[in-house]
Amino acid sequence: MTGYKVAVVGATGAVGTKMIEMLEQSTLPIAEVKLLASARSAGQTRKVNGVEVVIEELVPDSFTGVDIALFSAGGGISKQFAPEAVKRGAVVVDNTSAFRMTDGVPLVVPEVNREALKRHKGIIANPNCSTIQMMVALEPIRKAAGLKRIIVSTYQAVSGAGAKAMEELKRETLAYLDGTPKDQLNPEILPCGGDKKHYPIAFNALPQIDVFADEDYTYEEWKMINETHKIMEDDQINVAATCVRVPVFSGHSESVYIETEQELTVAEIKDLLAGAPGVVLEDDPSQQIYPQALNAVGKKETFVGRIRRDLHVKNGYHLWIVSDNLLKGAAWNSVQIAETLHEMQLVGVK
Amino acid sequence: MTGYKVAVVGATGAVGTKMIEMLEQSTLPIAEVKLLASARSAGQTRKVNGVEVVIEELVPDSFTGVDIALFSAGGGISKQFAPEAVKRGAVVVDNTSAFRMTDGVPLVVPEVNREALKRHKGIIANPNCSTIQMMVALEPIRKAAGLKRIIVSTYQAVSGAGAKAMEELKRETLAYLDGTPKDQLNPEILPCGGDKKHYPIAFNALPQIDVFADEDYTYEEWKMINETHKIMEDDQINVAATCVRVPVFSGHSESVYIETEQELTVAEIKDLLAGAPGVVLEDDPSQQIYPQALNAVGKKETFVGRIRRDLHVKNGYHLWIVSDNLLKGAAWNSVQIAETLHEMQLVGVK
Repeated sequence: MTGYKVAVVGATGAVGTKMIEMLEQSTLPIAEVKLLASARSAGQTRKVNGVEVVIEELVPDSFTGVDIALFSAGGGISKQFAPEAVKRGAVVVDNTSAFRMTDGVPLVVPEVNREALKRHKGIIANPNCSTIQMMVALEPIRKAAGLKRIIVSTYQAVSGAGAKAMEELKRETLAYLDGTPKDQLNPEILPCGGDKKHYPIAFNALPQIDVFADEDYTYEEWKMINETHKIMEDDQINVAATCVRVPVFSGHSESVYIETEQELTVAEIKDLLAGAPGVVLEDDPSQQIYPQALNAVGKKETFVGRIRRDLHVKNGYHLWIVSDNLLKGAAWNSVQIAETLHEMQLVGVK
Repeated sequence: MTGYKVAVVGATGAVGTKMIEMLEQSTLPIAEVKLLASARSAGQTRKVNGVEVVIEELVPDSFTGVDIALFSAGGGISKQFAPEAVKRGAVVVDNTSAFRMTDGVPLVVPEVNREALKRHKGIIANPNCSTIQMMVALEPIRKAAGLKRIIVSTYQAVSGAGAKAMEELKRETLAYLDGTPKDQLNPEILPCGGDKKHYPIAFNALPQIDVFADEDYTYEEWKMINETHKIMEDDQINVAATCVRVPVFSGHSESVYIETEQELTVAEIKDLLAGAPGVVLEDDPSQQIYPQALNAVGKKETFVGRIRRDLHVKNGYHLWIVSDNLLKGAAWNSVQIAETLHEMQLVGVK
């Protein structure tokens, strides 16, 4: 069988699991899928296209003969092992934040800036989940009318914090409904596994994703600002972000307010989005049609609705943008980058 | 016992129940609490200050001898019965949207515009829950530096849709965790009891509160715009709103972006809010301190945190504003209006 040898690093995680599914559905010619994880998970098996594949422990030589390596095992693992993969001739698509803002590393949403792939030197970064879906929805508007500013508030699902955070939501929810007081829900992961304090997510909204950084913005908020500038190749877009975790298992929603350079009618924005790659327009208030997280789960597209003009400010518009954060926000965008590398002949079978 | 005879209309509802609690805690001199509801609930009893009170059927003559009537039984009931109460000499504090935008009816958040009470002609309107908490938090900033614009995205709790919506969230949540597919959750109330279609709220986010109206804004969004103008007595503030229901039982959260007329430092905003009536500043990123819906439940204050300056736009600021929508957003604000009427000698015992 001819085709690529593809490695998935972090094969047992929430995103890694979805990467396997996306590879199964992919048009990429694949000869072999290699599953890599920590020593703890090595020896377990996962089905890939109906065949049991044994998970191997991740070591530098895991990448010998690998053409494409998809990483989603945390930034530390990427920093350590992505260069090892490149050294052995693999092209890395990294879903962590390790290399996203590194000069010379393309940060790619295929619908938006596939041309940036031409400049890759072995590593391509997959953007942050909340940024990707916003880029897919806003790029058609930016191209048509320019973007002056973005003010976004997110409603992010717990699957973005991994499989254990999903278990935490389930556990806390059942305990709360069983009468456990909120102070005895014993949160251990959210809002952020790496931070000092943990709070319940069940029936709550937590305005913290990732740890706090400069100017009292969280890293997640910084990612939305910096990655937007890099992907759209325009530092002049004013991006303001507030990132919030809500008790949803999967599917990120975003309330996005924009101001464009040129005026558009709402009908024109709807037309632009209806014809845009990767976008599904779901916008009919008369029929109560608008995107919903529950409906987006399992789908690769970005759903956009609630499109309205600002009643007072010229060139101001609202959009409600929803996508499956594990798919377009992570696994699917990574596999789609691999497919695009293949299409553009930027990766070859060794 | 001297004091007011206070009627609660809609005594069995989610807000009516809290109105009774707030009256129990109130400094208002109360001689008697009269509980009114539909014929269906008449004859049931509720404890008020430890004494069983029989719920009576609401009829026009229910208000004979009543000094203060708190209404929260839907706009239709208010339209029909508030004038009957006024005719019989009662002062009405109405928690529905029936009279909020009516000329001559004060729309009051005591921390913001108590002086408007002086103009009352029998009916005082209690603003919409999502508007009230935003007004409490923004008024100190408006007074100090002027407000040019507000862009708000809400994270609203289901208790705002009533006690049955809370039961719906619980039922759907348990069914979903028990493996019921999302298409078989049988939603009957949310997003809006009076609308055609219903969607699951469990583990979802619904960008519809109340029915759709002009310009594809929902009524909830229109309320935030129009009520802000009326309460702050300034039509020139540009308000843009997106209202979203999230799977939280009680406690509305709001991601609020503002632009002020004059520049303020973040420290100045924090100082203003720390000293403002009805506000609790909860803002220390180094200790992961920020307002949370779960923590606000049962409290009368409005909690504000995540205060940050816009990194690109002068005079632009973010705030995260949380309050118990059944208390400050409804029952407590109504009882607080009654207390203020008493303090200002705008209501008398008959």
